[in-house]
Amino acid sequence: METVKLKELIDQMTVAEKVGQLVQLTPDFFAQGGEITGPMQQWHMSEDQLFSIGSVLGTHTAEQVYAIQTSYLEKSRLKIPLVFMADVIHGYETIFPIPLALASSFDAQLVEEVAKASAKEAAEAGVHVTFSPMADHVKDARWGRVLESNGEDPTLSAVLTAAYVRGYQGTASLAENKQRIAACVKHFIGYGAAESGRDYHTVDLSDLELYQNYLPAFQAAIEAGAELVMTSFNTIHGVPATANQPLLQEVLREKLGFDGLIISDWAAVAELMAHRVAADRKEAAQKAFTAGVEMDMMSDCYLNALEQIIQADPAMKEQLNKAVFHVLHLKNKLGLFEDPYRGLAPENLTPRLLKETRLLSREAAKQTTVLLKNQALLPLQKKQKVALIGPKADSKDLFGAWSWIGKPEAAVSLAEGLSQKEIDLTVLSYPDGEMLTSAFLDEACKVAKGAEVVLLALGETSEEAGEAASLTKLSLSRKQEALIEAVSQVNPRIATILFCGRPLVLTAIEPLCQAIMIAWFPGSEGGNALADLLMGESEPQGRLAMSFPRAEGQLPLTYAQLSTGRPLTEENSDQKYISRYMDEKNEPLFSFGSGIGYSKCTITHTQIIIPQEKGAPFEISCTLKNEGDVPHTTTLQLYSRDDVTEVARPMRELKQWQKIHLAAAEERQHSFYVTPEDFAYVHSDFSTESDPGTISLYLGFAAASAKLIGTLTI
Amino acid sequence: METVKLKELIDQMTVAEKVGQLVQLTPDFFAQGGEITGPMQQWHMSEDQLFSIGSVLGTHTAEQVYAIQTSYLEKSRLKIPLVFMADVIHGYETIFPIPLALASSFDAQLVEEVAKASAKEAAEAGVHVTFSPMADHVKDARWGRVLESNGEDPTLSAVLTAAYVRGYQGTASLAENKQRIAACVKHFIGYGAAESGRDYHTVDLSDLELYQNYLPAFQAAIEAGAELVMTSFNTIHGVPATANQPLLQEVLREKLGFDGLIISDWAAVAELMAHRVAADRKEAAQKAFTAGVEMDMMSDCYLNALEQIIQADPAMKEQLNKAVFHVLHLKNKLGLFEDPYRGLAPENLTPRLLKETRLLSREAAKQTTVLLKNQALLPLQKKQKVALIGPKADSKDLFGAWSWIGKPEAAVSLAEGLSQKEIDLTVLSYPDGEMLTSAFLDEACKVAKGAEVVLLALGETSEEAGEAASLTKLSLSRKQEALIEAVSQVNPRIATILFCGRPLVLTAIEPLCQAIMIAWFPGSEGGNALADLLMGESEPQGRLAMSFPRAEGQLPLTYAQLSTGRPLTEENSDQKYISRYMDEKNEPLFSFGSGIGYSKCTITHTQIIIPQEKGAPFEISCTLKNEGDVPHTTTLQLYSRDDVTEVARPMRELKQWQKIHLAAAEERQHSFYVTPEDFAYVHSDFSTESDPGTISLYLGFAAASAKLIGTLTI
Repeated sequence: METVKLKELIDQMTVAEKVGQLVQLTPDFFAQGGEITGPMQQWHMSEDQLFSIGSVLGTHTAEQVYAIQTSYLEKSRLKIPLVFMADVIHGYETIFPIPLALASSFDAQLVEEVAKASAKEAAEAGVHVTFSPMADHVKDARWGRVLESNGEDPTLSAVLTAAYVRGYQGTASLAENKQRIAACVKHFIGYGAAESGRDYHTVDLSDLELYQNYLPAFQAAIEAGAELVMTSFNTIHGVPATANQPLLQEVLREKLGFDGLIISDWAAVAELMAHRVAADRKEAAQKAFTAGVEMDMMSDCYLNALEQIIQADPAMKEQLNKAVFHVLHLKNKLGLFEDPYRGLAPENLTPRLLKETRLLSREAAKQTTVLLKNQALLPLQKKQKVALIGPKADSKDLFGAWSWIGKPEAAVSLAEGLSQKEIDLTVLSYPDGEMLTSAFLDEACKVAKGAEVVLLALGETSEEAGEAASLTKLSLSRKQEALIEAVSQVNPRIATILFCGRPLVLTAIEPLCQAIMIAWFPGSEGGNALADLLMGESEPQGRLAMSFPRAEGQLPLTYAQLSTGRPLTEENSDQKYISRYMDEKNEPLFSFGSGIGYSKCTITHTQIIIPQEKGAPFEISCTLKNEGDVPHTTTLQLYSRDDVTEVARPMRELKQWQKIHLAAAEERQHSFYVTPEDFAYVHSDFSTESDPGTISLYLGFAAASAKLIGTLTI
Repeated sequence: METVKLKELIDQMTVAEKVGQLVQLTPDFFAQGGEITGPMQQWHMSEDQLFSIGSVLGTHTAEQVYAIQTSYLEKSRLKIPLVFMADVIHGYETIFPIPLALASSFDAQLVEEVAKASAKEAAEAGVHVTFSPMADHVKDARWGRVLESNGEDPTLSAVLTAAYVRGYQGTASLAENKQRIAACVKHFIGYGAAESGRDYHTVDLSDLELYQNYLPAFQAAIEAGAELVMTSFNTIHGVPATANQPLLQEVLREKLGFDGLIISDWAAVAELMAHRVAADRKEAAQKAFTAGVEMDMMSDCYLNALEQIIQADPAMKEQLNKAVFHVLHLKNKLGLFEDPYRGLAPENLTPRLLKETRLLSREAAKQTTVLLKNQALLPLQKKQKVALIGPKADSKDLFGAWSWIGKPEAAVSLAEGLSQKEIDLTVLSYPDGEMLTSAFLDEACKVAKGAEVVLLALGETSEEAGEAASLTKLSLSRKQEALIEAVSQVNPRIATILFCGRPLVLTAIEPLCQAIMIAWFPGSEGGNALADLLMGESEPQGRLAMSFPRAEGQLPLTYAQLSTGRPLTEENSDQKYISRYMDEKNEPLFSFGSGIGYSKCTITHTQIIIPQEKGAPFEISCTLKNEGDVPHTTTLQLYSRDDVTEVARPMRELKQWQKIHLAAAEERQHSFYVTPEDFAYVHSDFSTESDPGTISLYLGFAAASAKLIGTLTI
């Protein structure tokens, strides 16, 4: 439809119909075909109201979308198709590793492919928009929702956020490309800074911190063309983001130049009452709408109060028209006016589980699994006598949060995966999520004693990580640590495979394990992928996108710390009046960027080559050598430190990275190219620019261990 | 000296002499009488430079002050007396309970008396200025420096900060009142918000949070007449406070109207290089001086670079004159031009330890000790068989940080105190600060078994709390928990007496103790005071000024939390998508305001009386009844909640409190009076005002348990 026609359509709409377009409800409102029972009754809704809403979220099947759209188009006056949205976070029916795992691939191409494959399955089931990617900056593993994040580095997060958007949306027209869906980047903004790591809790950030570390991933998403932005639950600068006009107007609209649709998070408009910044639904609607929230997800505030507000203040009609235009424009971009059943062909009303999607999921799990420690225990040898022990040994709980369409029974467990391999395998498990018993402990020790290698499969359940899964203690729960302790007494050859949605505190168990592999929640093909990795048929390629702390008391924690006025160094580590803890190191147990493979790489011949021409990039070059006799893939990481700055800046920051494949014993040169603009940062006056001066450069394979190779002067 | 003469004096000074006035050094620079060795050599100082500095910090005795002042006046050209400053934090030679304990008295009068007594001892030893009070807002017990704070409530902290200032300075002229000293309020600002509770670490705060919770105590100090303000070590808005011009000029000078002397913290000007916002000493001096830091405490930046900076930029001379004026004005206020040996009379060159000062210290310890739990175990009965066990049983380490002049051997230990009482006492201890041994454990169980009551004296050493004493784990260290566990097996009648400088995590041990008493670091008379309390000769009167968390993972934590959009309530406590932890309660183990005595009080007949006249205060009235048969002193606390606000506001906030003494079985009416101005808060536009609307009111004896008594409408 031409844009001018959209405007004509708006002219035909009553205020009530316009308000309707700004309302998003769940499918159960349509369960009785408009008969006023259930949720409709609860919200005092009329049939007219139902058949003028703009959007539905959370449908489960193509059939459901078909039925709701058909009934809606029959009964609504203007027959503007509904737009269907859903949480497609890391796959739809085929589940991929969780986003924090995908971030640990450091691989934008992989993320883009995963998003593309997810979009295809979702689109075939009638989903038009996904509430993904989550671009929230995080540095506190207590917050369960780090699972959905891209980890602690703003630069990596920005690159991956953009990759999600490209993967979901493609670059061609969404109207024509019906296997793509629109992306809604969330949560604007600051949600990851929830105080004390408690979900939905207060956020307090300076503007400088906001601009420097929280905006970049959103900016990247918007530049990549994200069609929607979701506001966050939290307060920021004292005002809930969902009612925060300066944030939505000055920052999101003006500074970031976002021109798409702004939607609230679930019930967040009504929650302005719980925040106590609105006395009633009317004030909540007024505040959210005035701030700039255009679509009210699952609250009855716009539905039942916005019309009255607009009628009382005709000056608001312009803003209403603009919001409705954003909704209709989205629908038009998706081609819904021409094809309200977009993507739903009769032959694919049930999404087909494509073999290549499963293969991609298996590949993704291999690229995201992080091997943190390996004292020559892995890979397993053929014919080896292997005991696989623990609640995750044959668990199908491999998806993690926000995998509501995926069927756990379709997942491949670790035991299933390993049973395909040529080893002498004994499996001993107890139900995932239950407490370790002493009877199991005895049995486990018996089995472990006779094995050449013990694989302990431990970790969190899907319920324990993700939204509303905040924890004060991050060690292994339900006595799983006791299993490691007991088994280590009878057989020290332990490789622990950890399934988790967040960094855990492994300080107590690390010394007891000869190998530690972080499998995260690996998705549908988890067991197969892990079996490939454990056998050495593939090499673990993940590198931590988020540091694993030594203690909960270190949180929040990021490798990108400021120097402080009293930095801890090797020279002053015996002094007291230094920025340090008395009872723990400052560093995490495993820092951002950590992860090893089955070989080892060295860096030599580092060089910083100053360009001849002014303005040309600096070349940072080194030689990588695979010191082992097997092929090896590593992720070379370039960190920098601006030596003197206008505002205090981190001791090191990730600038670039490259995944590099080396044949056995191969030696290869690699160069990074940087320009002065790469060292721009946000100044006190909020300008983003680089300053003349020296930049220290660090090369290596993890944030904590990257080595100073020299400085360049910009 | 008249002010006009000060200006004439400034006219006579060279730039070098002016810069000198802005330099503060330690006494050891004078150790060789100006001969260039030691620290002078290290800093490339000339004798001329030494004899034109403005101030000395940290002298130990009256004799030392006399000698340095005499030598300085002999050798300096203009003979401007030195001003001597020192950390007099909770007493000088007689040590009082730590500030966090004093805050737990909720008693401004007591704090004022303590500050007055401290000033007297310090003044007699030649101190003119104390680096106290510390007005930092705190909510993270990992930060060791909570010891020096007034706790987590901004209103209580403001009241007590002002009380310190009044106590140190008095209200009459400092020149005439030579037993008073000038107060330097610190640390401006945000220092207590050190990320992850690690001292000197990054601080990030919004302006709203800064204005609402961090400024009020400074404002109160300045209104009470504090002569100096010290800048803090931390960055804020990305810029170290010591180089933060908007903060020092727009906030401190303009908004708070401070017209006294601004001094850096120790070496903080030079530390701008460590922060990496200054390339060298010259840039550090330039940034700090331009920002508004007038006196450079113990760095060589002003000393060696400021003259050159001023000479290069004559426009800065005006600012230099102003800074020098602030120094001279302070000296003049102290009467130093007339009496450079202010307070040092021949007969008091050695400070006398006054009996009344010790008595005040004993009284202060009784008013600050917090009884958190008591299952009818305390007070002890006469003749009772009591075992006093643990490293603190006969420890003299009762002072805590910043008690450098007090002699630990002059402290009264708990064993000494109890030995004066009529009980059958057995004392078993091991050296404080050492690890619990299994041999001691066996012996302890033997002794405990035969006792009617076991007093376990445990806790931190002075080294473990205070500046640069940040911890990730807040449970009892060095296996002290094991002592409680073991003893509880043989005798459950345990009263644990805890010596500590911060809230500890007592979750594991609380169920094992029938009584828990927080003695803090109680000071010189600690053992006597505790013995009085344990015997019931006095009643513990302290109420926690800072919540004791359940787990380190809850930090930072304050009772004054915002509602959030998904508040946890009794009704929804079984739901998941609520702002909560999965593994721990949201509340602390013992909340702000907690503390009991030896009787019990009830509140009845609560009333909110609306004034007849517009503008008159509301009366909030209740009847308190001592339900016991012994006298009882309690602290009645009034909390409020503004029901709907422009920016999100806490669920409850302390508004007023009153310590009330009741005879046995006495019933007494008490009224608080509040006006709409009492409910003013900082709005988005940084205006501080109250809004029309309802205010919920809560009365009780702790933040967590205060009960809703009704609402009033303003």
